[in-house]
Amino acid sequence: MKYAAVLGYGTVGSGVVEVIETNFDLIAKNAGDAIKVKYIVDIRDFSNDPHADLFVKDFATVEADPEVNVVVETIGGINPAYDFTKRALKAGKSVVTSNKELVATHGAELLALAKENSCNYFFEASVGGGIPIIRPLCQCLAANRVDEVLGILNGTTNYILNRMITGGLTFEAALSEAQEKGYAERNPAADVEGHDACRKICILSALAFGRHVYPDAVVTEGITKVTLEDVAYAENGDMVIKLLGRAKRTEDGKIYAFVGPHLVPKSELISNVNGVFNSVMVRGNAVGDTMFYGRGAGKLPTASAVVADVIDACQHTDCTKYAGWEDTTESILADSNDFVSAYYVRVSGESVRSAVNNAFGEVSFLSRDGAKADECACITAPMSKRELDEKVKILSESCVVYAPMKVLALD
Amino acid sequence: MKYAAVLGYGTVGSGVVEVIETNFDLIAKNAGDAIKVKYIVDIRDFSNDPHADLFVKDFATVEADPEVNVVVETIGGINPAYDFTKRALKAGKSVVTSNKELVATHGAELLALAKENSCNYFFEASVGGGIPIIRPLCQCLAANRVDEVLGILNGTTNYILNRMITGGLTFEAALSEAQEKGYAERNPAADVEGHDACRKICILSALAFGRHVYPDAVVTEGITKVTLEDVAYAENGDMVIKLLGRAKRTEDGKIYAFVGPHLVPKSELISNVNGVFNSVMVRGNAVGDTMFYGRGAGKLPTASAVVADVIDACQHTDCTKYAGWEDTTESILADSNDFVSAYYVRVSGESVRSAVNNAFGEVSFLSRDGAKADECACITAPMSKRELDEKVKILSESCVVYAPMKVLALD
Repeated sequence: MKYAAVLGYGTVGSGVVEVIETNFDLIAKNAGDAIKVKYIVDIRDFSNDPHADLFVKDFATVEADPEVNVVVETIGGINPAYDFTKRALKAGKSVVTSNKELVATHGAELLALAKENSCNYFFEASVGGGIPIIRPLCQCLAANRVDEVLGILNGTTNYILNRMITGGLTFEAALSEAQEKGYAERNPAADVEGHDACRKICILSALAFGRHVYPDAVVTEGITKVTLEDVAYAENGDMVIKLLGRAKRTEDGKIYAFVGPHLVPKSELISNVNGVFNSVMVRGNAVGDTMFYGRGAGKLPTASAVVADVIDACQHTDCTKYAGWEDTTESILADSNDFVSAYYVRVSGESVRSAVNNAFGEVSFLSRDGAKADECACITAPMSKRELDEKVKILSESCVVYAPMKVLALD
Repeated sequence: MKYAAVLGYGTVGSGVVEVIETNFDLIAKNAGDAIKVKYIVDIRDFSNDPHADLFVKDFATVEADPEVNVVVETIGGINPAYDFTKRALKAGKSVVTSNKELVATHGAELLALAKENSCNYFFEASVGGGIPIIRPLCQCLAANRVDEVLGILNGTTNYILNRMITGGLTFEAALSEAQEKGYAERNPAADVEGHDACRKICILSALAFGRHVYPDAVVTEGITKVTLEDVAYAENGDMVIKLLGRAKRTEDGKIYAFVGPHLVPKSELISNVNGVFNSVMVRGNAVGDTMFYGRGAGKLPTASAVVADVIDACQHTDCTKYAGWEDTTESILADSNDFVSAYYVRVSGESVRSAVNNAFGEVSFLSRDGAKADECACITAPMSKRELDEKVKILSESCVVYAPMKVLALD
């Protein structure tokens, strides 16, 4: 018998307890040993919960119990999760988490601490919810030099964009709907401003490229500036708008990493990833393009990934499975102003088309029903962000230029 | 340093040698130890090959060399691959393979033999080429009861159907084109009759449901009867025709497993998997639907999966990682005549629509440009294969009924 302790009895934590109980027999078979939840740590009162006898309020109980093999941290946020994780690892207990903020911020340190103490720090659920992506990236694609990782990493924004595209809702209306359905939080900033997707691309980058990438170093743009006009112009170009996190290797071994709304051609499989689903594409130098798809959040899907980690941790109770990644001061990031992409640009003003041509040279104009005479939108030739900014500056002298978006082009 | 021996220097075997050399440093980093190819076993003459000094003609050399940790079997077919695999495992060497025929036929025995000899038998490349699917299914979804697995498991037939759909080529013309491009073999039976997809769904079923499923017990239908008329009717119903391998758990724990062409609604992500790409969907009771996508064949993609297995085998040189599956005489298969599905039925004859209604009751008729007056096609209500066969029998008394196809409905 192996024992787990679950920290935090919220959506994910209670899902973990449920999955471990519901699938007890098959987990025992797959793990080679039965797994039971011995403690649930939560400061709130759960005396009427069916698991009332498992609750403790003090993490020290877990820390001091040599029977506990695995600590499941589903508290979220930095504190007290960071402190509890360090104490668990120092006590030689593996830690499994869905906490992307903690992994993106302190992952390198916690992985090193796990190694020092011959235990493991696993975080399959921190990216893509239930989608198997961390293990496939580390193990199944271990024979590849990874050249690019990109994905729809946030279900809330994907749901909102989807409702704008298929339901004709404005951003504000779609956000309200997502909040009513429980897909978006009351304070939606972490999702709609792109911070959640940013943390996830940081984790994927560290795994794919071997160096910690800190969220504050990644240029991050959310979806708050996307309008129904943009949606209509994209449709006219046979594209949809998706919030993508991207990390791409440069020829000299650095990486571009950024988060932002993109126009994605409908011919790309990822353009069909809808609703709260997530999807991650990985390009390797041997395998080519692969894609992983599934529910990016939710109680049981996230618990599925957490419990897979628990099983793995129970199978490796006295060795460290992954080497982790380096935490160097020298950044692996290339200047994202050098990244070359075609851009979608929407403009309004007098003689708008000639002004656009004057600034950008030849472009492909898009159209939409009900467009005003003084507005236009176009797709530019590929250029660096630096070049784009210069041209936008010229154009802004005579016109209003709305937030440009990159156009995804996978060669 | 760990040593591998590659058996068979064909497309996949030479790809394995290439990937191990090209990505030598990163593989050493990911594996925790450098990996070198020590022998290539092939009876043909490769004296002018850059690797000429590695070639041996007799497998006994590999078998007798205690330095060889992993044997890579990329010969294909049952003989002599079966014999070499058994001898390698008995010598305590892990075996890694892309040989779906051997795994589907003798997998249970070879996994047991690996266990007896504290080594491993890995076959990530046997399903879905480069797509990580075996490990995700066994490890990442280990907390789930798997309820359904289905996929586009054969790139050749997917390419052919795609060319019929987008290029308007007949089956014969699309097959010829696939042969010219090297996507189909001169004798295409294994692909177009569905046998290759059948082997793969057998392997996935064994992994997902824990019992060996023998290919000859799985009802298998290829794509040779699919016509451009069918393609046009499917398009009218907003569907495309795909060859799917499917395995689905019944309520009493048995499974339906079969291979056949399906009409797939365009709203399903899998309908957008085109060309030689493969895709596998797995439905678990916690995670919900997940999908894995990538190149299902080809030198380097397949080698990517094989070398991932080589790395894993080198990291586990004295323990057996997977329990394998049971090989019981009692079949786990349910009678596929009981499987309930809506069907696509194309019919010609006098008073054809009323004959169809007479046999099937209410149906949804489809249309196509240029349809003859005496033909029609429809989607039936859901029914068992047994019921379908009875109704087709009635209809056949007055009409010609072409091969019906299942309509995919994922609830």
